[in-house]
Amino acid sequence: MKNPAAGNFFEDFSLGQKIVHATPRTLTVGDTSLFTGLYGGRFAVQSSDHFAQGIGYPVAPIADDLVFHIVIGKTVPDVSRNAIANLGYAEFRFLKPVYPGDTLASVSEVIGLKQNSSGKNGVVYVRSTGTNQNGEKVLEFARWVMVNKRNLDAPAPETVIPELDKAVDPATIGGALPSLDMGHYDFDLAGSPLRWGDYEVGQKINHFDGMTIEEAEHQIATRLFQNTARVHFNQHIEGQGRFGRRLVYGGHIISIARALQFNGLANAFHLAALNGASHVAPSFAGDTIYAWSEVLDKAELEGRDDLGALRVRLFAVKDRDPAEFPGVKEDGKYEDGVVLDFDCWLVLPR
Amino acid sequence: MKNPAAGNFFEDFSLGQKIVHATPRTLTVGDTSLFTGLYGGRFAVQSSDHFAQGIGYPVAPIADDLVFHIVIGKTVPDVSRNAIANLGYAEFRFLKPVYPGDTLASVSEVIGLKQNSSGKNGVVYVRSTGTNQNGEKVLEFARWVMVNKRNLDAPAPETVIPELDKAVDPATIGGALPSLDMGHYDFDLAGSPLRWGDYEVGQKINHFDGMTIEEAEHQIATRLFQNTARVHFNQHIEGQGRFGRRLVYGGHIISIARALQFNGLANAFHLAALNGASHVAPSFAGDTIYAWSEVLDKAELEGRDDLGALRVRLFAVKDRDPAEFPGVKEDGKYEDGVVLDFDCWLVLPR
Amino acid sequence: MKNPAAGNFFEDFSLGQKIVHATPRTLTVGDTSLFTGLYGGRFAVQSSDHFAQGIGYPVAPIADDLVFHIVIGKTVPDVSRNAIANLGYAEFRFLKPVYPGDTLASVSEVIGLKQNSSGKNGVVYVRSTGTNQNGEKVLEFARWVMVNKRNLDAPAPETVIPELDKAVDPATIGGALPSLDMGHYDFDLAGSPLRWGDYEVGQKINHFDGMTIEEAEHQIATRLFQNTARVHFNQHIEGQGRFGRRLVYGGHIISIARALQFNGLANAFHLAALNGASHVAPSFAGDTIYAWSEVLDKAELEGRDDLGALRVRLFAVKDRDPAEFPGVKEDGKYEDGVVLDFDCWLVLPR
Repeated sequence: MKNPAAGNFFEDFSLGQKIVHATPRTLTVGDTSLFTGLYGGRFAVQSSDHFAQGIGYPVAPIADDLVFHIVIGKTVPDVSRNAIANLGYAEFRFLKPVYPGDTLASVSEVIGLKQNSSGKNGVVYVRSTGTNQNGEKVLEFARWVMVNKRNLDAPAPETVIPELDKAVDPATIGGALPSLDMGHYDFDLAGSPLRWGDYEVGQKINHFDGMTIEEAEHQIATRLFQNTARVHFNQHIEGQGRFGRRLVYGGHIISIARALQFNGLANAFHLAALNGASHVAPSFAGDTIYAWSEVLDKAELEGRDDLGALRVRLFAVKDRDPAEFPGVKEDGKYEDGVVLDFDCWLVLPR
Repeated sequence: MKNPAAGNFFEDFSLGQKIVHATPRTLTVGDTSLFTGLYGGRFAVQSSDHFAQGIGYPVAPIADDLVFHIVIGKTVPDVSRNAIANLGYAEFRFLKPVYPGDTLASVSEVIGLKQNSSGKNGVVYVRSTGTNQNGEKVLEFARWVMVNKRNLDAPAPETVIPELDKAVDPATIGGALPSLDMGHYDFDLAGSPLRWGDYEVGQKINHFDGMTIEEAEHQIATRLFQNTARVHFNQHIEGQGRFGRRLVYGGHIISIARALQFNGLANAFHLAALNGASHVAPSFAGDTIYAWSEVLDKAELEGRDDLGALRVRLFAVKDRDPAEFPGVKEDGKYEDGVVLDFDCWLVLPR
Repeated sequence: MKNPAAGNFFEDFSLGQKIVHATPRTLTVGDTSLFTGLYGGRFAVQSSDHFAQGIGYPVAPIADDLVFHIVIGKTVPDVSRNAIANLGYAEFRFLKPVYPGDTLASVSEVIGLKQNSSGKNGVVYVRSTGTNQNGEKVLEFARWVMVNKRNLDAPAPETVIPELDKAVDPATIGGALPSLDMGHYDFDLAGSPLRWGDYEVGQKINHFDGMTIEEAEHQIATRLFQNTARVHFNQHIEGQGRFGRRLVYGGHIISIARALQFNGLANAFHLAALNGASHVAPSFAGDTIYAWSEVLDKAELEGRDDLGALRVRLFAVKDRDPAEFPGVKEDGKYEDGVVLDFDCWLVLPR
């Protein structure tokens, strides 16, 4: 019997293949509490039922990055268990709000394959979809990962590289926002007077605080997401590996940076889309994560004069002052200490 | 005033004594979330309300091992606070499903006593029962522990060793299963096509993944269960003790192994009974826990043609590859690295 | 743009200033679960819906110290972000019970200011109020902290030192107790037969157990409370600071000590008021916290013959046996190892 936990290798994927991922997961107020304990998020909409209801949510929605971790976590055993690298994301949009009590499941379709010239591995492109208990899509994204071959003699598949948008068209975002009455949004309680109109393209925002990672924290988080990638959990193996230690799940860095983003972007309560993201360098327990953002673009939201979107490039850096805004050097390489480059659309009141 | 936290010593127990344990505990979705964060369980029935409801549960039930930890945790201050060793379990059956909102309490009855020849300690046998807020039994088991005497001059009690079944009769299990409609069990979402009929007696299953223990994790888990055994929490004392460090609660190893068991037994969603268990060796923070199972027996469930039971011997091992199936040597001793020998009945779809 | 995360410095405060703190927070059963995992509390009223309902609560209330952490956590970014020291608390009373689903917010008013003679910092006195979603006060307290000046040339404000009661008048406590039917209080399930009448003024109670702190634990706790004080989270900065390491939030010690207080005060289920508290010395990961209490006073509760209040001085000590009752020396200084001196009113059945 093939060990079901061994996951798929490059030659196990075929173009058009559809994968139903285990395990459906009901998200609850318990997940929100533990998520708060792990990251300390302070966006008022996700923290307070009363605040959320005041602007028209039925109840405080589940944090967008928690939705993301749950949906992607399910794909790991099938898609990226044997991945060497997470290469990229595209066409990544939140489509419906998720509330406590909703049950999420994930499916993926293989949309591209390209064996590398070494013959030892290849790139697998998938489009993954998270759905709720009513079959409604809550999140959709394309992702590509480099996966090892099990059998080096397995023939190379035909190369198909999907055409993916370089960025999400802001006209297509906002699906995960219910009808809202922003007139009741309380900027004092939300922690900042700054609205969409107060930000300018090119502006850089220091998120100021730093958060030191502990092994127990990233392990608890990654298990909460039912993400089984072994590099995060197994010191017995990783101790003999390339880094000599467990690797922190890249999504843990995303959520630390997203929580820190409150400092300067307190009203950017909704992560609506992701244009692309790069896990620039690995992080480990003991690293202190900081973050800063650059406003890349501004967009109105179709049919909504109460909300606007900011395209923000969120950088996470480790063990250095984010006040220096460490990002990309002139030669296109990342500056020392950068661990995450996360290009997203955020929604906030106008 | 006798310090109530000091617990009972061997001479404090008497045959037939009944002990009402503090503190009743309402289990909630919050407990399920934290339990997921601590162990990463992926059994669909316990993870998804929608999946559970599809087969007839009112809502996703609380994980069986969490029920066990809660019920046994309450017995600790009275029964095993001063235990030197947990010697065994018998006649251990889950009798009713437990759902979020249910409140559990525990009582124990002393069913046997035997002072050891050293005169310094003795074995206490108790039968412990967990009940819900309606007074219905949800779990019942016998347990025996070696407990120190406070006063070496206290007279030895009459020796009574209870007759306990060597294994749970499969005809008596299944009480914690509601009426289910297994026709709606979705094997894709559950993560494996393997049914009861696909397993064979003698088969060995490598659960593949390893999980490294952190101090914060086992402490948070053990406190969640309101288990106060001091060896798990107090480095100031344990640093001067036999191991020089805090000992991991044996139940923490059980739940790590049970979660890993998903790899190969994804449909074995219900832990119905325990024939016996041995905490073979202590575990500490830094240990990486692996697991493997051997199918010992198969049984039909009385009156149910939709479900079957597997008797499985689940071994947890530390810091070595479970692919070698380390268990018991020819001389009857355990192989190096074995930390848990857990003989149980699991229920899965036929 | 002034960085909103930078917090206020001494010269930013003015007498009578009112501050609405971000972020409102809905407390849920998820918070109760994680709180249990972090501290292991065993008071029956907060642990069991069934027990709480038996005596007249609609459902198990949120632990009083969790309410305190949430309310004070909100004040940190505005009040104590740049505090050098938490100097004291007064007139600290719980006014309404808090239940899962309630949303708490905090406001503060500056009630006193005194620049220190060095000209480098000053003492800020605030009165902070926590309210629920109906605008009802659930907690009120005065607090004073020493805060740095940003600009040493800023003029000193007029010195105003508020008159604060030395202790809370027991005639004013009990507001956070609903109408209760203590006849249904089950002392067996609660874990102790000891009632109000069984304690004597002057009595010292050893709480017996010790709890070793882990970095992940105090960080998860402090984030759960949305407390952003940087000294708790940032090893990159703190590693170069006075202690070379992260400082544990003083409230973490309070909740460890409060949970340990169950050993000897199992029926003291409600923390009703705080007469004063001093964080005597800093605590760090690796410290083992013990606790003991001295009964300072006893009071009847106005209009209630079923409940009584004990004034208890709860000491937390680290890395030494609490059986020695380490507290205050004859010269008025604290004995070695004392980390917390917490003078409170507790309520228990008569």
